[in-house]
Amino acid sequence: MARFFVTASNIFGGVAYLSGKDAEHIKVLRIRHGESFTVCDGAGTDYVCRLSEDDSGETTAEILEKLPSPGEPDVFVSVYAAYAKGDKIETIVQKCVELGAGEIVLFPSARCISRPEGGAIIKKQNRWQAIAEEAAKQSGRGKIPQVLTAVDYKSAVQRAAGAEIALFPYEEEKILHIKTALERKPGSKTVSIMTGPEGGFTPEEAAFAAESGLVNVSLGPRILRCETAPLAAVTAVMLISGNM
Amino acid sequence: MARFFVTASNIFGGVAYLSGKDAEHIKVLRIRHGESFTVCDGAGTDYVCRLSEDDSGETTAEILEKLPSPGEPDVFVSVYAAYAKGDKIETIVQKCVELGAGEIVLFPSARCISRPEGGAIIKKQNRWQAIAEEAAKQSGRGKIPQVLTAVDYKSAVQRAAGAEIALFPYEEEKILHIKTALERKPGSKTVSIMTGPEGGFTPEEAAFAAESGLVNVSLGPRILRCETAPLAAVTAVMLISGNM
Repeated sequence: MARFFVTASNIFGGVAYLSGKDAEHIKVLRIRHGESFTVCDGAGTDYVCRLSEDDSGETTAEILEKLPSPGEPDVFVSVYAAYAKGDKIETIVQKCVELGAGEIVLFPSARCISRPEGGAIIKKQNRWQAIAEEAAKQSGRGKIPQVLTAVDYKSAVQRAAGAEIALFPYEEEKILHIKTALERKPGSKTVSIMTGPEGGFTPEEAAFAAESGLVNVSLGPRILRCETAPLAAVTAVMLISGNM
Repeated sequence: MARFFVTASNIFGGVAYLSGKDAEHIKVLRIRHGESFTVCDGAGTDYVCRLSEDDSGETTAEILEKLPSPGEPDVFVSVYAAYAKGDKIETIVQKCVELGAGEIVLFPSARCISRPEGGAIIKKQNRWQAIAEEAAKQSGRGKIPQVLTAVDYKSAVQRAAGAEIALFPYEEEKILHIKTALERKPGSKTVSIMTGPEGGFTPEEAAFAAESGLVNVSLGPRILRCETAPLAAVTAVMLISGNM
């Protein structure tokens, strides 16, 4: 079924109001009066709607059913990913949103080769946010995850440390595997995962993360690329928490 | 530590012989006499080696230690992926090898938009195999997974059905989740996972897979893109089997 995100203010009195691109999209998809589609308020609620007669020029739909968005997990995963080269950030944003991440926070770290700044970062952030929105629609999410940027490594770590489970996948960690770390705290509602750039984290960065309360975990004996590690980690959280 | 794959016949008498590209690569990396690196026989065994004096013109290394390749999982996962557009197959091959897949089998299905044939398929297969080899080296695998092609959907399904656990992620399956399906048969040594093209499988294809013994499983309530589903499924197998 076709799926649209609208702002909550466009849903009232048993009616959903669609405008701009969404109204256009309904025409493109050739949805006719009486046919159904889903409208999501972007805050975790889905509305099954039926397209109304359109005599006023407005595109409106009658709400038939209201339900919690089934695509929204009951755990909020924050993915902290260091800036990476080329289109890797796009891959991370798109796939992590599909897999159920709650937000993506990008940050610079010592070994980052790519490090967008100033005007470039705003342009890129807009692009990444558009990718997140597109992925949220396509995968049937109930919320559009935000793509945020942190000014430096330190502030990213300190924000990550606020989650109930704060994980730092690190290739030097051989003992504690991510599955065990997640199973230790069942029912946690917030998880953060912090992954490095192409060259990984420096020992000093790893030490700072550990001092700040992040837990070193292993993603197994294989060395994962910087854009693969967050996908594997988000999958692990969804799987172990019963959201996959 | 630098890592090279050699054919098993180049390892004998406590010495590893490197030739061609590998010998070149040792020069490029400026590895000097007495320095160590890893040679893998591509059959699951690693050899820690020390570069020998090179007076004969040959590049040889003394074997210091022999051990099972730590990057090789103890479960053989066969990923069956339908042909997909653009560079999605490359993404699937690269990421599945990193995550621990044993082989990748590509096949045509009813809704495949891309369907390479004849000469094109051989050229593409060579390219995908090169990507698998590169990913195996980079991630520290002990074997280079093969990229195979099946002539049609039916033969792919029948081959997939031979595994101890044969899974068919299907968005219409709402009850049996992949985690439960994997936990039902602990200790299985062969797992196959079959995923569809951009438009998914047809109901007839799903019915044929079920008749052939594949088990429908859910990858959760979010709709995953065709290149994301196999990565999530391989991650799930590695995680639940204790290989991640």
